[in-house]
Amino acid sequence: MRIVVPAGGIGGARFLRGLKATLGIVSGQESEAAITVIGNTGDDITLFGLRVCPDLDTVMYTLGGGIDDERGWGRADESFTVKEELAAYGMKPTWFGLGDRDTATHIVRSQMLAAGFPLSAVTEALCDRWRPGVRLLPMTDDQVETHVVVDGDEGPRAIHFQEWWIRHRAQLPARQIVSVGAEKAAPAPGVLEAVREADLVVLPPSNPVVSVGSILGVPGIREALEEAVVVGVSPIIGGAPVRGMADACLTAIGVETSARAVAEHYGPDLLDGWLVDEADAGVEADGIEVESRPLYMTDVDAAAAIARAAVDMGLRIKERRA
Amino acid sequence: MRIVVPAGGIGGARFLRGLKATLGIVSGQESEAAITVIGNTGDDITLFGLRVCPDLDTVMYTLGGGIDDERGWGRADESFTVKEELAAYGMKPTWFGLGDRDTATHIVRSQMLAAGFPLSAVTEALCDRWRPGVRLLPMTDDQVETHVVVDGDEGPRAIHFQEWWIRHRAQLPARQIVSVGAEKAAPAPGVLEAVREADLVVLPPSNPVVSVGSILGVPGIREALEEAVVVGVSPIIGGAPVRGMADACLTAIGVETSARAVAEHYGPDLLDGWLVDEADAGVEADGIEVESRPLYMTDVDAAAAIARAAVDMGLRIKERRA
Repeated sequence: MRIVVPAGGIGGARFLRGLKATLGIVSGQESEAAITVIGNTGDDITLFGLRVCPDLDTVMYTLGGGIDDERGWGRADESFTVKEELAAYGMKPTWFGLGDRDTATHIVRSQMLAAGFPLSAVTEALCDRWRPGVRLLPMTDDQVETHVVVDGDEGPRAIHFQEWWIRHRAQLPARQIVSVGAEKAAPAPGVLEAVREADLVVLPPSNPVVSVGSILGVPGIREALEEAVVVGVSPIIGGAPVRGMADACLTAIGVETSARAVAEHYGPDLLDGWLVDEADAGVEADGIEVESRPLYMTDVDAAAAIARAAVDMGLRIKERRA
Repeated sequence: MRIVVPAGGIGGARFLRGLKATLGIVSGQESEAAITVIGNTGDDITLFGLRVCPDLDTVMYTLGGGIDDERGWGRADESFTVKEELAAYGMKPTWFGLGDRDTATHIVRSQMLAAGFPLSAVTEALCDRWRPGVRLLPMTDDQVETHVVVDGDEGPRAIHFQEWWIRHRAQLPARQIVSVGAEKAAPAPGVLEAVREADLVVLPPSNPVVSVGSILGVPGIREALEEAVVVGVSPIIGGAPVRGMADACLTAIGVETSARAVAEHYGPDLLDGWLVDEADAGVEADGIEVESRPLYMTDVDAAAAIARAAVDMGLRIKERRA
């Protein structure tokens, strides 16, 4: 079975860990199932001359056993010496959590990019070490960056998504969320092929605006996904995001923070099935099958059960259509 | 009193610490004496996309209180997480001692260089933090790199000085030592002016080939120094280098490893006075005044006494000529 998962950071990575578990995928062992992840690169940022890809790294570290499980991002057993020293020199920004172990990843990536390798090749090289047990593709090899338009003293100004998200904790009202460079971007090699050959596409409970939304914003990807059977897992439970500040992003694009509104935002062209939490049982969305079940990913087992439910739902839909 | 010191790494930095002490220079306080250091940049190397200036940093850290005193190079309380992680990715080289704290310095430098600032401006900015109590100038803003020609399987090949020095511990016979880029380099802003206005120039017991020699190789610097009163401190005691592997460098350029041979290599055009260790008492060099006294820099006091002797000798020579 071939499954494609367009994924953001923490939520996507934890869902993927569950999906691997339920499909019995163990790194380095043969498996009947194969997962291709289309990773969001809209959060990427250049800091101190280093190219940082937070979502790709979160997926890679989480599935490769290197993640700090409690924080959900960055490396386990991490130190922040480089960051402290940069601050001692007066270097800005100081708000980004640049760990020492993580810094090495960014140095390797930046070196390879400077040498002319595309991000997809770089990501593959990094995964040679981490062996995440999935094929991890960036959504695009082109530079696409999510910027957020906020109010400034002299009118609206655009700041990088990371600055809005981390420094301002998404507390500055977002007037607009812009995917800079998206219209000229092309899907990375292998992305469209993977979708075309997939038995199933599963949208994890990633941020529907700045994670899944960024991926869908790369010309060609949404169109390809619409041809596939797609089941999504709601990132909203009882009117609030399970984790993170997706509500601030949804508000910025005029979408209500509810399981139903997100499903309708994705729309029936994209979404065939939608898993909502038991708290949202009874929710309906036009043209989309909805099922309810516990959606809190409290541990790997819980994530595996959710992933299994999404896969089963997708296979049922697929069978019915065959 | 204005003193100019062309300096390499550890030996130069420790001598400078003694010179500051004997002149009563305390960072942040007014002083009648002023030291300008012309730092060797021939050891500089680009590693993992970061520009590393080992000698400038050794001087800056030593005089600014950040040095690892036992090693003589790098930062005190240093960790090597980034280096270990780079090695885990299979990145080479692995032989360079890239510390985490040190890495931040290289990131700041690389960022400023990439932004278009010359190395002299970058060095000044880094010194804003370290306040070394001296004016630290790179010998040049141009890229000059010392390479060493060694025997390879397929004939002679040139490797970077750092590779020869650290990886091969100067054990590969050096056929030639080349200062790549030197002939086109210009002294950094302020270098020639400082020499012209100096009351005295002191050559610390730095490596006469790859440290002082590199500085002298920048067109214009040697000529300017020849106009000044210059006293040197021998880096050779009893036929062996005090520290480091200067003998391998001297052999490569056909100079005997002795206090006398080094003085004659510098030559009477450059050198007016030469301090040798008591073990070399009686050594003579054509056209150069020689004095002997204990030259082991066992601690700051010992370095201060040596520096004082060099300054006094220089002032006597100067007075006599006036």
